[in-house]
Amino acid sequence: MPHSLREYTKVIGKRKVKELKEEAKELNGLTLAHVNSTLYGGGVAEILASLTYLMNDVGIEAEWRVLRADNEFFNVTKSFHNALQGQRLKLSNKAKKIYLRTNKEFAKTTRLERYNFVVIHDPQPLACIKFYRRFSPWVWRCHIDLSKPNASVFNFLKQFIAFYDHVVISNEKFAKNIKRIKPYTIIYPSIDPLSPKNMPLKKKEIESMLNARGIALDKPIVSQISRFDPWKDPIGVLRAFKLVRKRFDCQLVLLGNLASDDPEGELLYKKVLKESAKMQDVHIILEHNDLLVNALQRASAVVVQKSIREGFGLTVSEALWKGKAVVAGNAGGIPLQIINGKNGFLVNSVEECAAKILFLLKNPEKAKLIGKYGKAHVKKNFLITRHLLDYIRLIKKLISR
Amino acid sequence: MPHSLREYTKVIGKRKVKELKEEAKELNGLTLAHVNSTLYGGGVAEILASLTYLMNDVGIEAEWRVLRADNEFFNVTKSFHNALQGQRLKLSNKAKKIYLRTNKEFAKTTRLERYNFVVIHDPQPLACIKFYRRFSPWVWRCHIDLSKPNASVFNFLKQFIAFYDHVVISNEKFAKNIKRIKPYTIIYPSIDPLSPKNMPLKKKEIESMLNARGIALDKPIVSQISRFDPWKDPIGVLRAFKLVRKRFDCQLVLLGNLASDDPEGELLYKKVLKESAKMQDVHIILEHNDLLVNALQRASAVVVQKSIREGFGLTVSEALWKGKAVVAGNAGGIPLQIINGKNGFLVNSVEECAAKILFLLKNPEKAKLIGKYGKAHVKKNFLITRHLLDYIRLIKKLISR
Repeated sequence: MPHSLREYTKVIGKRKVKELKEEAKELNGLTLAHVNSTLYGGGVAEILASLTYLMNDVGIEAEWRVLRADNEFFNVTKSFHNALQGQRLKLSNKAKKIYLRTNKEFAKTTRLERYNFVVIHDPQPLACIKFYRRFSPWVWRCHIDLSKPNASVFNFLKQFIAFYDHVVISNEKFAKNIKRIKPYTIIYPSIDPLSPKNMPLKKKEIESMLNARGIALDKPIVSQISRFDPWKDPIGVLRAFKLVRKRFDCQLVLLGNLASDDPEGELLYKKVLKESAKMQDVHIILEHNDLLVNALQRASAVVVQKSIREGFGLTVSEALWKGKAVVAGNAGGIPLQIINGKNGFLVNSVEECAAKILFLLKNPEKAKLIGKYGKAHVKKNFLITRHLLDYIRLIKKLISR
Repeated sequence: MPHSLREYTKVIGKRKVKELKEEAKELNGLTLAHVNSTLYGGGVAEILASLTYLMNDVGIEAEWRVLRADNEFFNVTKSFHNALQGQRLKLSNKAKKIYLRTNKEFAKTTRLERYNFVVIHDPQPLACIKFYRRFSPWVWRCHIDLSKPNASVFNFLKQFIAFYDHVVISNEKFAKNIKRIKPYTIIYPSIDPLSPKNMPLKKKEIESMLNARGIALDKPIVSQISRFDPWKDPIGVLRAFKLVRKRFDCQLVLLGNLASDDPEGELLYKKVLKESAKMQDVHIILEHNDLLVNALQRASAVVVQKSIREGFGLTVSEALWKGKAVVAGNAGGIPLQIINGKNGFLVNSVEECAAKILFLLKNPEKAKLIGKYGKAHVKKNFLITRHLLDYIRLIKKLISR
């Protein structure tokens, strides 16, 4: 559950907390709405839970509004998401109609025109802007990888982006297609060091949580924690682990959940179960449980995030925050979190992934040092308090125009 | 997806639609918030999806706000729910603390004081009222069976009910404990005849949806469609079916889903799978799919709703609306929907349930007639348009004070 700003003093120090309050002073009483399409599951919902609360703590009257929709809509927006990350898609008129109708319905029952500042997250509610009369700044906050978007979907969505005052993306690499149409700002996402996913845990708690799921701590754990999503390449992780397991006695844990706006997840989950059915020392856990994520990361010798495309890949920062050595795909925002060879390894193939995991398992002292650098890097760049500061500055910039 | 009021003309006629608009005229521009704790799953979320939209259609600026919480909170409120329906519970201080803290956090990020009228649904967000300065009428809308509440939980919740201006319940039977503390109104819940769950379907669509799930239409179907919840007694249904199946060749389909605010559901689901593992002609389907519910109800020879306790039991009206004979537990609002012997049967035991199912299977002509009466009864009493009218009248009464 959310924490007040005061409680972050123990993580970032008094000076930084004071700085945040100072910066936010002139926003006291400003009303703001964050809008996305799921209350649970996925990094965006986690960020919004902490960020909305913290914004209120510095005087911004922030609220969180959620677009409700049916499976038909989420199938369409999932295909948009995949297409924006580069997959091919023939955009049908039916899909456009479903997308627009749901955005229109949302607008009919949600009075966003009453807020002083509106932040729309990701493509699902992007088009709702079309159905409002606006008197305040509206920002489109895109969390996904826009480096090589499918043209037909991007062109369709461009007409709605055009209505916004400003765009926020997570990475300079995604700017190419935005900068031609809109002013933009880069804001890195973040993790909350006090949330159940990241807060300190006792060794005993960690053990008992893992034991309860049939995982003994008698051999080193390699883990990947990710939604079951093809872009996170869980099948690739299984293959890399197969190579590692031939040369080092260890175990693999894949932990994931299914988001309510992702109908594809279930199919992939079944594929993962099938692929791993005959493998030894592999645990597949389907559970939405932040404390378990925390425990598993802390219990791991090596944490893997073998993504092929990523909005940002915050699970990397989560693992680094726990002082773990991370082996991750060279995708999306991961290279911002991992400086290759210093605080982790970036890999581009199953074989490379296996080699780096093996290296870290064989050299636990080096893994420890790498993890230490990682934690410092996250503290400086990827905590929710830095995220809050970036938002405060952006809002001030846009409302002063 | 929601429909505008105009489209209900084909169900309830021009005159009733006009009457609704007339009644709502003086509420034009009134802002109203419905608050509950889940966007999906369960009757309340379904009603709010249609009702919020329809309210906007008659000029009320209605919005739907959702309390976000973690499993810990939902475990507590599920125990409250069960205790209010009569289960024993020793209310711990820890549970009270979790409940209050989450309500307080919700209040911090949700500015309900800005609405002209607030409707809080069920116990989950009940206590949030404590954290607002109020200038408008607030109503607690309780959808659950309050006839024999556990005293310790009811006494704890009473202090929050005391803050409200008015209480709405679904059934005179639940009034006993409310009337001592608050003025109340009875409003029956309702079904939406145009929603995917209730709209007309073609025979071919019905067949293909059921075939895709391994159900052939070659023998009569007995079905129960309900969340996996002990109060809905799916185990009792399995036992009744066992008795029926000995004397009549038929098949049973149990279709249900798990709500995101109900951590107990999963356990019961597993128990149902175990209990039915060795039975013939039984299909257990875990799927959240309104069209499938619709198809299954339309394909059934007999629909069962063997509830032991019920807030209201709207699946009964859903089945009656499709002209089906229903055999249901004599609980909650079910006797309001079924006039025993005329448009269905009320039962109090597994044996009685089996006997009535068997009677209907053996007498399909009588089942048809019973179903016809049922549909007329629902049209008069349990459609969303009647529900909207009741709300309009209640709001007018409370704001004119």
